[in-house]
Amino acid sequence: MREVVITGIGSTPFGKLDGRGLESLAVEAANAALRRAGGDRKDIGAVYLGNFVAGPLSGQEVLAGIVADELGLENVPCTKVEGACASGGIAFRHAVLAVGAGLCDAALVVGVERMTHASGGQVTQALNCAMDNRSDGPSGLSFPGLFGLAWRIHAAKYGTTRDEVSAVVIKNKANGLKNPLAQMGASLTADVIRQSQMIADPLQLYDCCPVSDGAAALVVVAKDRAKGAPDMPIDVLATVQTRGSARIAGHEDIVSFEATVKAAERAYAAARVGPKDIDFVELHDCFSMAEVIDSEDLGLVPRGGGAKWAAEGRTRVGGDIPINPSGGLLAKGHPVGATGVGQLYEAVLQLRGQHANQVKDAAIGMTHNLGGTGVACTVSILRRPDA
Amino acid sequence: MREVVITGIGSTPFGKLDGRGLESLAVEAANAALRRAGGDRKDIGAVYLGNFVAGPLSGQEVLAGIVADELGLENVPCTKVEGACASGGIAFRHAVLAVGAGLCDAALVVGVERMTHASGGQVTQALNCAMDNRSDGPSGLSFPGLFGLAWRIHAAKYGTTRDEVSAVVIKNKANGLKNPLAQMGASLTADVIRQSQMIADPLQLYDCCPVSDGAAALVVVAKDRAKGAPDMPIDVLATVQTRGSARIAGHEDIVSFEATVKAAERAYAAARVGPKDIDFVELHDCFSMAEVIDSEDLGLVPRGGGAKWAAEGRTRVGGDIPINPSGGLLAKGHPVGATGVGQLYEAVLQLRGQHANQVKDAAIGMTHNLGGTGVACTVSILRRPDA
Repeated sequence: MREVVITGIGSTPFGKLDGRGLESLAVEAANAALRRAGGDRKDIGAVYLGNFVAGPLSGQEVLAGIVADELGLENVPCTKVEGACASGGIAFRHAVLAVGAGLCDAALVVGVERMTHASGGQVTQALNCAMDNRSDGPSGLSFPGLFGLAWRIHAAKYGTTRDEVSAVVIKNKANGLKNPLAQMGASLTADVIRQSQMIADPLQLYDCCPVSDGAAALVVVAKDRAKGAPDMPIDVLATVQTRGSARIAGHEDIVSFEATVKAAERAYAAARVGPKDIDFVELHDCFSMAEVIDSEDLGLVPRGGGAKWAAEGRTRVGGDIPINPSGGLLAKGHPVGATGVGQLYEAVLQLRGQHANQVKDAAIGMTHNLGGTGVACTVSILRRPDA
Repeated sequence: MREVVITGIGSTPFGKLDGRGLESLAVEAANAALRRAGGDRKDIGAVYLGNFVAGPLSGQEVLAGIVADELGLENVPCTKVEGACASGGIAFRHAVLAVGAGLCDAALVVGVERMTHASGGQVTQALNCAMDNRSDGPSGLSFPGLFGLAWRIHAAKYGTTRDEVSAVVIKNKANGLKNPLAQMGASLTADVIRQSQMIADPLQLYDCCPVSDGAAALVVVAKDRAKGAPDMPIDVLATVQTRGSARIAGHEDIVSFEATVKAAERAYAAARVGPKDIDFVELHDCFSMAEVIDSEDLGLVPRGGGAKWAAEGRTRVGGDIPINPSGGLLAKGHPVGATGVGQLYEAVLQLRGQHANQVKDAAIGMTHNLGGTGVACTVSILRRPDA
């Protein structure tokens, strides 16, 4: 496989973007990425689009072709990929593979979702498409329920407290305040969180990411073809995709996701780095407890220590391992199909030293995108070229 | 890229399969393909699943992971791909690329759809997800309307008659009678067709494929790893994916689809064969007029001559170029996400000399899978290894 870099990046804000259609969001992000990539649109040899619920919520499929059409891209293969909340990361991986394998010299990655136009009930039903609906769907558990249960087990096993978990929320909401693209940055206290609405005991309102619209896009290019790119090309050291059980009962344990553990192992091996080399991570904090679990599964904090490290300030920008300097899903938002691409967008800004919440001397960054009950996962490792 | 072959194949019948869930259909087809592939399930390094409307019609996504889980496959990347009616062909192409590029030595392709449990209105709405719903959806045209219009233009340009088009229907329905997997084989006459219900003038009932459930699966393997396969491995000479305009108004002409023309050109070039080398084709006859257009776009019959060749018997088994010996979508059925994989299943049987409606001495076969208003297309060319 050839070496691959990210050149152009683009993103809409994440949030409640009233009146914006799926195509309009995707095209705005993609046009920005294509412009910043330099080069000719004719160089784009493949389009991968990550999306999860445009079918049920907007009655629209074939989005990859529709978006490419509107972008005026040549007659190239355009593919929508889906793996629930990991759809964006999967789109990125396939673009990297297409370029890496030499099928084309450049590829466009787009992630997009539109959700806020639908009712809460419709959104819940659409998100439940990510569960195995022969078993888990009818159980009534839903995703907040799953992470509420995981929290109880985590607390029983490791003594994790409400205030420790709140430290994750406080950090990400504060990070989000600095991110101009974030939907819900906020300055919170443990008291405010403790007084917020109970959603799925012990999970409360601020423990949950918002419902969001948004799109993000990247151009990936063969490294030897990226010499003239106007912005610093960022090396893709690894991008790995794994799966875990599609059913909750199929997991040994719900305070760890096998798909994440395996993806991280393989990504570290492929990139020839270890957890200590990672300068920051954008990980899949759909709920506060998800960040706790993910950070442990990725080997970035000790097992059982995810919330404690947050409470000790070790996962803040400036700490041992900055987690979600963008604000993460909790504060930046979670337009499902766009999320994985948005994480990479944030990581590229960090590695270029251009992030609004910059991690000092960031040289190697990681992104982690998890779908469903851990059924699909991608982990990518990026590097600043001079590092 | 390494040479790739198809080893194991499996399929459910296509039809109204009451009480069968999506997962059950997919797993049945995939288990059959894995068994016939020989080898160990541990060799499967990637799963690609083609599906179009499981979200809107069944509230179920992440099917690739769910199916792999149930098959007991190892922790491998599992990806659903979508390109409307071309979803199955796109899944196949990605499996071939994964093996061809050396990411893994074997990959599983599954196509699945469940549609007959939904109402006619729900199905129409779901199928319209394949149109650009900012423009063409609200026009009220729908897909029968599109192919009715195309027919009128084809008739005006080339003098194509109702009875000539009926020859396509009569042939495919008769072919379907011989195919044990087909939903709606029939012995028809031009009179019966002429008296059938008008759907979108001049398109009548028998000009339209049925609504179907079904699944098909294939195992693709690196050629040098397929020595011990129990069934004859079939060479994949080419698999090409293209796009055309997502909107009807974006096409120069609706009696030709640019995506098909380009895909065929590239597939012939990659396979180093020409239209005269093709011994049979399974092409995307969602409507009788679609077969007419496709056969011309693929260069298999003269421009404007698609229906005339059918009327002259030149596209029957035993004719110049047998088209849809399986019965095609018109008679075999069209479980959307499964269709492209089902075409390859049929082609493999032909090339092994095991088809119930065998084309004599078939050595090179083609499959053609078209999505939406020509927005996505795949063309593959397969060869018997001793040819």
